[in-house]
Amino acid sequence: MNKLTGLFLLAGSSPNDTNIHYLSGFSAPDPFLFLKTNSVNYLVVSAMEKGRAEKQSSPGTKVFTPSELGLSGKQSGKVPNQIIALIEKSKIHHAQVSSDFPVGIFQALKKRGVNISIHGKSICPERKIKTKAEIALLRASQRAAAAAMNIGMALIGSARIDRGQRLHVGKELLTSEKVRRLIHKTLIDHDCAGVETIVAGGDQATDPHERGHGQLYAGQAIILDIFPRSEKTGYWGDMTRTVCRGTAAPELKKLYNAVKATQAAALRTVRPGICADEVHSTAKAEFERRGYKTQEIDGRHVGFIHGTGHGVGLDIHEQPRVGTSGEILEAGNVITVEPGLYYPGLGGVRIEDTVVVTEKGWRYLAPCEKTFEWL
Amino acid sequence: MNKLTGLFLLAGSSPNDTNIHYLSGFSAPDPFLFLKTNSVNYLVVSAMEKGRAEKQSSPGTKVFTPSELGLSGKQSGKVPNQIIALIEKSKIHHAQVSSDFPVGIFQALKKRGVNISIHGKSICPERKIKTKAEIALLRASQRAAAAAMNIGMALIGSARIDRGQRLHVGKELLTSEKVRRLIHKTLIDHDCAGVETIVAGGDQATDPHERGHGQLYAGQAIILDIFPRSEKTGYWGDMTRTVCRGTAAPELKKLYNAVKATQAAALRTVRPGICADEVHSTAKAEFERRGYKTQEIDGRHVGFIHGTGHGVGLDIHEQPRVGTSGEILEAGNVITVEPGLYYPGLGGVRIEDTVVVTEKGWRYLAPCEKTFEWL
Repeated sequence: MNKLTGLFLLAGSSPNDTNIHYLSGFSAPDPFLFLKTNSVNYLVVSAMEKGRAEKQSSPGTKVFTPSELGLSGKQSGKVPNQIIALIEKSKIHHAQVSSDFPVGIFQALKKRGVNISIHGKSICPERKIKTKAEIALLRASQRAAAAAMNIGMALIGSARIDRGQRLHVGKELLTSEKVRRLIHKTLIDHDCAGVETIVAGGDQATDPHERGHGQLYAGQAIILDIFPRSEKTGYWGDMTRTVCRGTAAPELKKLYNAVKATQAAALRTVRPGICADEVHSTAKAEFERRGYKTQEIDGRHVGFIHGTGHGVGLDIHEQPRVGTSGEILEAGNVITVEPGLYYPGLGGVRIEDTVVVTEKGWRYLAPCEKTFEWL
Repeated sequence: MNKLTGLFLLAGSSPNDTNIHYLSGFSAPDPFLFLKTNSVNYLVVSAMEKGRAEKQSSPGTKVFTPSELGLSGKQSGKVPNQIIALIEKSKIHHAQVSSDFPVGIFQALKKRGVNISIHGKSICPERKIKTKAEIALLRASQRAAAAAMNIGMALIGSARIDRGQRLHVGKELLTSEKVRRLIHKTLIDHDCAGVETIVAGGDQATDPHERGHGQLYAGQAIILDIFPRSEKTGYWGDMTRTVCRGTAAPELKKLYNAVKATQAAALRTVRPGICADEVHSTAKAEFERRGYKTQEIDGRHVGFIHGTGHGVGLDIHEQPRVGTSGEILEAGNVITVEPGLYYPGLGGVRIEDTVVVTEKGWRYLAPCEKTFEWL
């Protein structure tokens, strides 16, 4: 082990630089530089951010401003300059960067003779095993999802149906947008932010990434997919239910029951030591056994057209993937199990829960009713 | 001009890959590949996203799934494979990537003999000149900010003051969190999302990136900084006001008036053809003239400790910067002008408006009252 190797990570202006958040305890709206060494970690932030960075960063993190690194003027904001100054300050002999590090900065450092290479491995493999404290934070976000889900389902479930099968609440037509707004407001009451929440009915729901818009109708399957992010902690929740106001056609009800049973079958396989692919292949087999084919019709992919799930943590999609990645489940993993079926003309159904893998199997992060028909 | 050069951009899972959104009209929660050539643009998306990508992408964009590029199985998701397949499909001779492209993928392509280099220039310099249509979208987000600001200010301004100078609304104590929640709910009613909204009073407000938490008090300067993002269009607004419930101490009032006058002075310089730095140096000079020093005291930076503004568009912080970047303002730029002063023990004040640079000077994107003391 070379004690003088350091790993540089660069936070963008995105809230998704979660490895840095995980390792440093610090996040900021503006880009900043992070250096991890075997002994101590370093942050380079603007003078404005220094106080907050010192307060929020993990113990043993040294916080510098560019001027404290001897940089001044326009040059002080340039990341290559900051890296070169920090290499000197931290006395590391060899610098590494993550494989998603910006190529432009990497090349600039090479040109200036910096001994730098790509850290080929995962930066924080430990992230996929959640600590007790993390599970509590994930549970809080998932409870927010469940609270918003219950309210969203109740709004749809209690809507009045007119002769044209349109849903109404009071004197107003009920749209995807209205349900979404109520869901987002409920999430705010739980100190979470909901963005891109899906409330999609009928054929809209057969495109799993369509958020949904416009009038909602009785008799159609309406997918609600809620993924709140805690504003305080950054941890996510993820939950999907499918509901129908009024009576569903028999083949739609059958579709729903197939998804529900398949989720249960997939969940039954979840335990430490199994390959996550097995959860996915179980879902696939169960759909096939029930006669639901996944295929391309007129250029559209129909049936079970996505993976069965993904890890949830500081990222909404993280390791382990529940699909074909070959990852082995371990106790402490937090994953979604979310099979779905999508057939234009009939409808889309997805049921998703986020579960924690336990020594004995799994448990829900937060419970929430599964009711399809709201009569 | 080499007609057979193509520029590859990679969308992460972040909503901030705004060049791709700008160029392709498409955005997605999951990573996807984008290739810009002189004749036609290409998207590589999952089978699940194909329908939506074809619907939403700009005319002349060709959408492929990995399998349509001849990739299958586990290899189909690997970006280097997709790039190599797309180079063949599009018949480009030379590939370029943006300077923020992931170094790991760049190196992998080099190793596989791909003729690839870094596109050294700005990807979408045209982004800083907003079209009429874009200005309308930015105005809608800024109006949402103003609506939420008015409601947030009214909540603080109408609060009851107890003997301990604490603010109350009804029977409850008024906290930063409560004001923030009301602001976020108001933004939802305007189809915008607010994240990390700042409601910070007293010494909390002297750290410009502290979001604010806990009890709010009469007599303190409370900074409200609201930056909504339209859920539909992705365009941002950005506005800051500073308010005080009850009477402010004379030196705090003086601080507020200095910031207000300085914003006005900085705004007076805004017009096409001037260097944006001049707006910033005008603000700096005005503060100095009024005796407000920017310095380091006990390791804390106090005074005017940030730039005067930044461009706003599909990114909350984009070109042109109003600081020391040397950029020349042009008609169609949309920028913030947001001087502030921060003195622990006294308080923090910032006033920010987003304005569009016009042929003759500038105009507010959306108006909003500037009232400091709410008596």
